[in-house]
Amino acid sequence: MKVESPEVGQEVPRLLPLHPLQYRDAVTAALREDLGHAGDLTTNATIPPHLRWRGTIAARQPGVVAGLEVARHTFAAVDSSIRFDARIGDGSRVEAGDVVARIEGPAGALLTAERVALNYLGHLSGVASATALLVARTAGTRARIVCTRKTTPGLRALEKYAVRAGGGANHRFGLDDAVLIKDNHLAVAGSVRAALASVRDRVGHLVKIEVEVDNLEQLEEALDCGVDAVLLDNMTIDELTTAVARVGGRCVTEASGGITEQTVGPIAATGVDLISVGWITHSSPCLDLGLDFEAS
Amino acid sequence: MKVESPEVGQEVPRLLPLHPLQYRDAVTAALREDLGHAGDLTTNATIPPHLRWRGTIAARQPGVVAGLEVARHTFAAVDSSIRFDARIGDGSRVEAGDVVARIEGPAGALLTAERVALNYLGHLSGVASATALLVARTAGTRARIVCTRKTTPGLRALEKYAVRAGGGANHRFGLDDAVLIKDNHLAVAGSVRAALASVRDRVGHLVKIEVEVDNLEQLEEALDCGVDAVLLDNMTIDELTTAVARVGGRCVTEASGGITEQTVGPIAATGVDLISVGWITHSSPCLDLGLDFEAS
Amino acid sequence: MKVESPEVGQEVPRLLPLHPLQYRDAVTAALREDLGHAGDLTTNATIPPHLRWRGTIAARQPGVVAGLEVARHTFAAVDSSIRFDARIGDGSRVEAGDVVARIEGPAGALLTAERVALNYLGHLSGVASATALLVARTAGTRARIVCTRKTTPGLRALEKYAVRAGGGANHRFGLDDAVLIKDNHLAVAGSVRAALASVRDRVGHLVKIEVEVDNLEQLEEALDCGVDAVLLDNMTIDELTTAVARVGGRCVTEASGGITEQTVGPIAATGVDLISVGWITHSSPCLDLGLDFEAS
Amino acid sequence: MKVESPEVGQEVPRLLPLHPLQYRDAVTAALREDLGHAGDLTTNATIPPHLRWRGTIAARQPGVVAGLEVARHTFAAVDSSIRFDARIGDGSRVEAGDVVARIEGPAGALLTAERVALNYLGHLSGVASATALLVARTAGTRARIVCTRKTTPGLRALEKYAVRAGGGANHRFGLDDAVLIKDNHLAVAGSVRAALASVRDRVGHLVKIEVEVDNLEQLEEALDCGVDAVLLDNMTIDELTTAVARVGGRCVTEASGGITEQTVGPIAATGVDLISVGWITHSSPCLDLGLDFEAS
Amino acid sequence: MKVESPEVGQEVPRLLPLHPLQYRDAVTAALREDLGHAGDLTTNATIPPHLRWRGTIAARQPGVVAGLEVARHTFAAVDSSIRFDARIGDGSRVEAGDVVARIEGPAGALLTAERVALNYLGHLSGVASATALLVARTAGTRARIVCTRKTTPGLRALEKYAVRAGGGANHRFGLDDAVLIKDNHLAVAGSVRAALASVRDRVGHLVKIEVEVDNLEQLEEALDCGVDAVLLDNMTIDELTTAVARVGGRCVTEASGGITEQTVGPIAATGVDLISVGWITHSSPCLDLGLDFEAS
Amino acid sequence: MKVESPEVGQEVPRLLPLHPLQYRDAVTAALREDLGHAGDLTTNATIPPHLRWRGTIAARQPGVVAGLEVARHTFAAVDSSIRFDARIGDGSRVEAGDVVARIEGPAGALLTAERVALNYLGHLSGVASATALLVARTAGTRARIVCTRKTTPGLRALEKYAVRAGGGANHRFGLDDAVLIKDNHLAVAGSVRAALASVRDRVGHLVKIEVEVDNLEQLEEALDCGVDAVLLDNMTIDELTTAVARVGGRCVTEASGGITEQTVGPIAATGVDLISVGWITHSSPCLDLGLDFEAS
Repeated sequence: MKVESPEVGQEVPRLLPLHPLQYRDAVTAALREDLGHAGDLTTNATIPPHLRWRGTIAARQPGVVAGLEVARHTFAAVDSSIRFDARIGDGSRVEAGDVVARIEGPAGALLTAERVALNYLGHLSGVASATALLVARTAGTRARIVCTRKTTPGLRALEKYAVRAGGGANHRFGLDDAVLIKDNHLAVAGSVRAALASVRDRVGHLVKIEVEVDNLEQLEEALDCGVDAVLLDNMTIDELTTAVARVGGRCVTEASGGITEQTVGPIAATGVDLISVGWITHSSPCLDLGLDFEAS
Repeated sequence: MKVESPEVGQEVPRLLPLHPLQYRDAVTAALREDLGHAGDLTTNATIPPHLRWRGTIAARQPGVVAGLEVARHTFAAVDSSIRFDARIGDGSRVEAGDVVARIEGPAGALLTAERVALNYLGHLSGVASATALLVARTAGTRARIVCTRKTTPGLRALEKYAVRAGGGANHRFGLDDAVLIKDNHLAVAGSVRAALASVRDRVGHLVKIEVEVDNLEQLEEALDCGVDAVLLDNMTIDELTTAVARVGGRCVTEASGGITEQTVGPIAATGVDLISVGWITHSSPCLDLGLDFEAS
Repeated sequence: MKVESPEVGQEVPRLLPLHPLQYRDAVTAALREDLGHAGDLTTNATIPPHLRWRGTIAARQPGVVAGLEVARHTFAAVDSSIRFDARIGDGSRVEAGDVVARIEGPAGALLTAERVALNYLGHLSGVASATALLVARTAGTRARIVCTRKTTPGLRALEKYAVRAGGGANHRFGLDDAVLIKDNHLAVAGSVRAALASVRDRVGHLVKIEVEVDNLEQLEEALDCGVDAVLLDNMTIDELTTAVARVGGRCVTEASGGITEQTVGPIAATGVDLISVGWITHSSPCLDLGLDFEAS
Repeated sequence: MKVESPEVGQEVPRLLPLHPLQYRDAVTAALREDLGHAGDLTTNATIPPHLRWRGTIAARQPGVVAGLEVARHTFAAVDSSIRFDARIGDGSRVEAGDVVARIEGPAGALLTAERVALNYLGHLSGVASATALLVARTAGTRARIVCTRKTTPGLRALEKYAVRAGGGANHRFGLDDAVLIKDNHLAVAGSVRAALASVRDRVGHLVKIEVEVDNLEQLEEALDCGVDAVLLDNMTIDELTTAVARVGGRCVTEASGGITEQTVGPIAATGVDLISVGWITHSSPCLDLGLDFEAS
Repeated sequence: MKVESPEVGQEVPRLLPLHPLQYRDAVTAALREDLGHAGDLTTNATIPPHLRWRGTIAARQPGVVAGLEVARHTFAAVDSSIRFDARIGDGSRVEAGDVVARIEGPAGALLTAERVALNYLGHLSGVASATALLVARTAGTRARIVCTRKTTPGLRALEKYAVRAGGGANHRFGLDDAVLIKDNHLAVAGSVRAALASVRDRVGHLVKIEVEVDNLEQLEEALDCGVDAVLLDNMTIDELTTAVARVGGRCVTEASGGITEQTVGPIAATGVDLISVGWITHSSPCLDLGLDFEAS
Repeated sequence: MKVESPEVGQEVPRLLPLHPLQYRDAVTAALREDLGHAGDLTTNATIPPHLRWRGTIAARQPGVVAGLEVARHTFAAVDSSIRFDARIGDGSRVEAGDVVARIEGPAGALLTAERVALNYLGHLSGVASATALLVARTAGTRARIVCTRKTTPGLRALEKYAVRAGGGANHRFGLDDAVLIKDNHLAVAGSVRAALASVRDRVGHLVKIEVEVDNLEQLEEALDCGVDAVLLDNMTIDELTTAVARVGGRCVTEASGGITEQTVGPIAATGVDLISVGWITHSSPCLDLGLDFEAS
């Protein structure tokens, strides 16, 4: 192709987006979960159809926002005439009171869609905010915060996106897009070397391989075999420091196990490349967001 | 019918169950989310098909368990020959180390199913445990802890079940199974009385009606009109006490707004019937559960 | 919220609508059921693509119309350029010859969509018309005509909507949105009191409870326990009259069992609040509607 | 193949069955429609899980039964341990009181499945019974009763099966499995001959072609062109008699339009091959069937 | 209807189209198959969102094109703002270099949709091209090339459409839209006559019946019974010639079995009406089509 | 875990399997595609229900088999009592006449399932056989045959599995599990270095990155930046030889573009690691397999 467009290369957003095909049906299902048998009885019984409102979605506590496109699709799925005007982008930091989006449309449709839209936005912003907190605690180190497969069933792609929005990075998305040889696999294979040989013989050239190592012997064996990454699970700061030194840049190093807001900084200071944390996806509280209306 | 079975009436479980039809497809979808394009590469590349294991699911922290049947279905969906032997029932309190279930089956299938099963079990047990915590803080009062519609999209029926497992009760499940007239509806209707009249004229005889009231005037108006329940949102302890006295048992009273582990006790002491809490479903951390294997 | 809009409160339609998300996929499935493997062979083989027609949907017999929005979605699902102009609203009474809607669009698409659209419209209008007939027979009484769970599989929400369009009201929508303790449940529980105690201990505060009673003893027991409604099944006019007197307004009274166009009036005259009728949903004949075309 | 099995040829059932893949998902959807958000509250709150019952499904009025396999699948979908023992086959004539099937299983599951199973069985038996009534009225003639595409959305294959169970035959199943050139198509094509030429040039050799004819000129034109069947719509008895004579066995003749229990006999006596009736599928009342339980 | 439009009758396209409802969900599923967990990583990480491109889809080898509407839907499903301008219609013959369509839209969306769109277009054009090749080899004979049920699972309607685009005709679409009595059925029935009697007694008047015959005796028996078509499987040219003569136009004759580009001409010359070929759907190679971009 | 099982490590099959959850719904959909409206008319009208048959699936030409588990699921989905006894495993080489599987069950169900089962088995075995042919042509070299994303829509995971069964390896499965920077991406990014920087900044540590290079300058730039693999598209043998030498083992080398049975050997001899071929998935002919029955 003969396209000359060097000047636009830098405009690529930092945050990899989701395509609506990846969540559209889930949004519809969530709305049906709320509409139930009979729809929004209260709204249908009290709000005239031609009334139009404006609304403002604002943060009620500090955090990082994620899920604005999902919220937009939620409102649109209830009524395609609703205008959803995001005032910030996913990944933006907000303080209490900051406006996140303005919406306008039929009052009844806005009320019907409100809860599902906020459930998505609050949940994903909660994941992003928890991630951002740990990212902040590791500022100045080489360590990146990454998520795990400990996600809410049905929401993995969205939660992984929210981790990215919070400044974190993604570990593998499923059992299929990378190999992670854990203790149970090693126990059957007999050794790191045997496990790696068995895997290498079976997976394609574009699949990365990570091995969980419990001690320095396993670490050396893994490095000898040429893995892409090592998972250093539940190691002390000293053990991590030693392990990182041994690796010496030969592969990616990942620390995991019981990471808290307090321990993440010291762990990052050991020089590991990645710190994986399950609770940013499975246990982060919602970000509190409110939606207030006025006549339009 | 001429059935004589008075002696079995008392055996009805306290906890209303879900039917598998209510979560079976979600379990399958969650497994597919994890299997992705190519399935469990690591397990398929390291675990021989005929190896069988036993496993033990145990709590790693105190809490209340919920979701055992969902976990059973998850394992069965991966391999119908897996035996899942729950050692306790949903709603049981556990301490760290307590065995929750034993499983037995093909090692590969157990590893493939493990993460999805634990994601469900951990999430639902987290909801149950958070609920149980608040229930414990309100012991000795008439107040029941109830959930809201602030649930994780796609998981409402399961999370509402987990609230019941934790000793709480369920508020409405969707927009359709009860009427809840909130401030936005009242603003349009013009008054509590007008809103109630509009609703009564439109919904069936088996739909209960609750109204959010902000002050004693609205409360009196609601009582005059004969509502089933009043939502007392963000009131102080004094306001709640006064409101409960005014109601005098004429309808159900529900307190809501900013409930914490600390405030729930004093609020319960005001005599309200219900305390609704969003965070037990949207922000409760997972209960930490582990799965350990041995050769069978 | 600071919305001042008292003057619009009275514009809320009497008929609670369905949201398209509640039937959209069913419409698509019904069209695929008709398109089958190869689509509309006859139309595709005889009608040029650029031909546009106008059409008129008109009643061929008297009745009450329901399902216009479903019909609109059916045409739109076949070709989004079809214009569907409803001339009356659901719930309107029509005489033979009355125009219900005018449509305009590609002739082929109109012919392809015609049968499914009329199948919905005829079926739902049939339900509405049967309901309206009974409503008319009970004019001047307090009795409302309500439907049951004896609906056509897959069409419950639509048929319940059609009952509302016909001037009736809805009983519960499913097994989940209200409790209805019937003879089989009572037989196991041992008594009305025991059954009610068991239920009250397990369901939320927004779930209404109705009990089927066969005699005055059971009725008194139910009233003592404070039920929301009593189902008086297959009682004579005299028995109903006595029962209504005994209830004395303490709860809702519902008559059921073998209701016909002839018996519904006398039953309504006993003073019962509700008369539930299965056949308005499961056995009402279609309303005959025709669609005629002309070149546009 | 070298199979010698002439003696079993005569055992092929007269009634072409459906495969469960053709209705299994619809049954599941119908059960979910009834389970709603929270499942069978009443049963779960009153019936102990280990109680087992026997039940008897019996006719409460005369008719022809259809849908027994669908009912069996409905019970099995709720609890695979339920035994469903059909005492008669689909297509059997019953009198009031005749036993249709016996079931046995967990009492709670039987109660939860009961309504959906009976909704299917009653609806399909209603279609079969209406068909059988018309079949009886045409005994001794060559005329067969056939259904149309005027079916309940989502239930076409099941209703067409019920028509067969009632002794009728099936017209085309959709827009795709046969060509039926109607007045609107003829108006565009300009003539029967032109329409047939356009169709013949476009459809495969296994697609039959039927044409609606309004008068003898069109009939002759159709016969000249060699159609498989002619639809004689809304003709008088005299017109039908003449048309049948003109056809003289050269193609199948079908009468349609306003067929009633009274008119079907005289129409059949004209010698037409088929009489198509929309109301046997869209307006036939349910057959009344009851389910009574006893302790097992 | 009073429509006067004889002059447009000749504009009906020769190629019967599919309705988008027949492939829309398959397109979406194919896109999700490609998007996987995380979407188009490469494009999202390198292409700025506001960049717009033009693209040209061109043939890289001679053939016949099919699937343009499917390709259009694929691009539209990724981004509804993409313009897809087909320069030729399905069924058109192309040479290497011929432009098939021009597209314009967001560069990222075009790249994301490209592969799925071309996979459909290449596959269906391959089927059309293979069909056209055989059609060309039989020019001047009465024989039509028809497909079989040997299609790619999930793509039958699309592949049958592609056969029509290539100038072929369709055999039956499934097990349900026509009867084809094969050797296995005959072996059980005992004779052609018995099989036909059993079938005639059970299927509707719009279902055509074809019988596979292995020899002249079976052929005579079939003709005596009045079948619609006979399948002459794996016969020699001489046998086919004899069979066609015996049939003498009394029914449709179909040759099948091991048809190749070389044998199809001589077989057509025997005078058979149809030649059915499995490999045009199950083994035809893709037509090579390319998509080149330039800045728009 | 304390499992001691070194001796079983070597039993892990070479061929990574699919989990039935990855194709089960597609099998059901393919069966419904064939059953259509009315099911298997011919079989239902000629085969008595209690007749049981044995059948043998055998190869009619040499090749490599794939899809036996899919075929097993197809038969089981039609009738769970069918026994499917695979005599060889996927990936086995067969000659004409070799038995692939024996089946036993109800004759009607076997006939109904036959076509869909063989369509899957023939298609997947065709992919495996084409792959195996190229693998054989490259014996003795380091080159592996890999597939592309040019797969049949809806069948990607199955076709990729078939490639593995044929001895090939898998390239990426979708747009999401690896990065492949192609000419269009490079044109926008401006350079290999810029593209890689943009990607590296956005994707996780377990995602491999491959770059398409057109010349040695780009190759050097890619190697400098440390890519995981380089795609050498449409290069001559000489160019490939030079490129492989330049790479010197620093990354994986992949040749692509116009690979044929004749050219694959010389290309493999250049020392490239991988040769990717689209036509093994999009244009490989079915493997001819037959199913013969006898009475059981």
